[in-house]
Amino acid sequence: MTTFDAAAAAVPGPDHDAAAAARARWDTRVKPPGSLGGVEDLAVRLASISGTCPPPAIEAPVVLVFAADHGVVAEGVTAWPSAITRLMAATVSSGGAAINAFARTVGAEVRLVDVGMLPGEPAAIPGLLDRRVAEGTANLAAEPAMTVPQLRSALDAGAAEASAAIDEGVDCLIGGELGIGNTTAAATTIAALVPIGERPIAGRGAGLAAADLPHKERVVRAAAERARAIPDPIERFAAVGGLEIAALAGSYVAAAARRCPVVVDGVIGAAALVAADALVPGTAAGCIAGHRSAEPAASIALAHLGLEPVIDLGLRLGEGTGAALAVPVLRAAVAALTDMDELPDVS
Amino acid sequence: MTTFDAAAAAVPGPDHDAAAAARARWDTRVKPPGSLGGVEDLAVRLASISGTCPPPAIEAPVVLVFAADHGVVAEGVTAWPSAITRLMAATVSSGGAAINAFARTVGAEVRLVDVGMLPGEPAAIPGLLDRRVAEGTANLAAEPAMTVPQLRSALDAGAAEASAAIDEGVDCLIGGELGIGNTTAAATTIAALVPIGERPIAGRGAGLAAADLPHKERVVRAAAERARAIPDPIERFAAVGGLEIAALAGSYVAAAARRCPVVVDGVIGAAALVAADALVPGTAAGCIAGHRSAEPAASIALAHLGLEPVIDLGLRLGEGTGAALAVPVLRAAVAALTDMDELPDVS
Repeated sequence: MTTFDAAAAAVPGPDHDAAAAARARWDTRVKPPGSLGGVEDLAVRLASISGTCPPPAIEAPVVLVFAADHGVVAEGVTAWPSAITRLMAATVSSGGAAINAFARTVGAEVRLVDVGMLPGEPAAIPGLLDRRVAEGTANLAAEPAMTVPQLRSALDAGAAEASAAIDEGVDCLIGGELGIGNTTAAATTIAALVPIGERPIAGRGAGLAAADLPHKERVVRAAAERARAIPDPIERFAAVGGLEIAALAGSYVAAAARRCPVVVDGVIGAAALVAADALVPGTAAGCIAGHRSAEPAASIALAHLGLEPVIDLGLRLGEGTGAALAVPVLRAAVAALTDMDELPDVS
Repeated sequence: MTTFDAAAAAVPGPDHDAAAAARARWDTRVKPPGSLGGVEDLAVRLASISGTCPPPAIEAPVVLVFAADHGVVAEGVTAWPSAITRLMAATVSSGGAAINAFARTVGAEVRLVDVGMLPGEPAAIPGLLDRRVAEGTANLAAEPAMTVPQLRSALDAGAAEASAAIDEGVDCLIGGELGIGNTTAAATTIAALVPIGERPIAGRGAGLAAADLPHKERVVRAAAERARAIPDPIERFAAVGGLEIAALAGSYVAAAARRCPVVVDGVIGAAALVAADALVPGTAAGCIAGHRSAEPAASIALAHLGLEPVIDLGLRLGEGTGAALAVPVLRAAVAALTDMDELPDVS
């Protein structure tokens, strides 16, 4: 089984030659140079990630939905109780969640992975993959969210699931998640790792009342400030992250190591990528930002990573939904670069 | 055969009841209210267009690529000669253009319709549907681009092709086009029909040199100013439009009359919609803006029509490419509204 450390050692970084070949190939296709705009950039990036030009078609994408709970819910930062995480996991399992509908229309499989949900009802969820690390995190407002061994186990769980999927032929990884409280953990992770200045960083997540937003902002900023004093990046991430955020980070690193493109979802996915790229520089070069979440921390993270999102429709649902919407655009980009005729000589 | 006038008399306008039902259905799905952002709006709009909630799945989209030439090319407003229109039509016919690659990945058929290309090489283009109205337009900088009978024939050609496609089972119309010079005609059409103020309206089209852009801007503004003095909307559109722009307008009206959703492409598509909605109020309510073109006139037109584009990736190629990219998002929107579980009572 692939460990996080083994994957981290194998992350190749961008393939500049393949990227240059893709850019040159675009400029010889039968269209005005640059006229496909961001679609050209996406195919160039996929060439850089895969190390081939044109990059391979995306035929077998998978959504990995990592689910976990969060001790910070005790701080009153969420509109819903932690029990909803498990109920939503059951909904994903039965095919009735938004990500299932989206995944069906883009031809993606959905895999649901428990990396640390609290026990509760329903006790048995069909198809749920068991990679439980803990029964949720500790309250990041009061103590480190995870121990370092817990964080490492969650990174390993994500790396193992991504590697297993790629071994089975998956050619595109869509990072999804479930976890009541995880926009707080994600915003805190971003604030702990990225300069944020005075901009608001907390968002309303799954429907927090506007009146409660200043409290969430204070919780995030206080925890992030304490975390920024921790020099070791693993310890810092453990202090404020979440088990599903860590699993996502592990999955990104493992996919990057295999040159399999990753489509990153919203604020949780962006937090995982900020952390992954801090731990393993070069990981972000293996990823594409699927969409711009309505959560403010997401845009801060994407700007820090230098990523332009594919879709910008104000989604803030999570589960991998925004990332799934980007997959058909990636497919179109690859198809055009691969299949378009060469520009004839009309001089 | 459906005429433009027959279709115009049948445009129903928005179905507010179906839209309200869709909005209410979203709010009972298993997610935080509003958390799918613009995706929710798209499904609501498709419900309003189709008159049903949930709206029908999009299973058989077609790209209608209307091709024609433009007398305004004589003014030096393009990077390419008119002969390129026919060469690109041959490329679309053989499957080697960008729109072919995009259409394959989104499961759309491509139909190519000659509504007024200049004669030239290749003389025979396989699969090209012949609805020729004229050998290109006259030079809109010097005289009316079309006679009123020519305009009416082009509107009829578009209405007939759209109706024929819908008769055959097509359930989503993607409006595409080919025509060297048509960003000039489109910008002029928009400037003739929409208040534009002092903002720049001309764009670089298929690669006009930056140094030539002020000249194009002057050509567009001068022709638009003359056209704005023409009170009759048909005569005004004839003065500055294009045969493929008129055919697109006719296709939109015919699709709206049949409650078949239309996905509008870039600046040419937006110009056609401005004209169609001016001639037949309610047509825009049957349309979705597929993307935001990099051409400045496109954003002016979309703002005037109150349309938010689905995709915003800086495309400026035309052919229907930006609109094609929006189709998978529409599919995801319909699938989620149709298939998602109802929110359980967790109070």
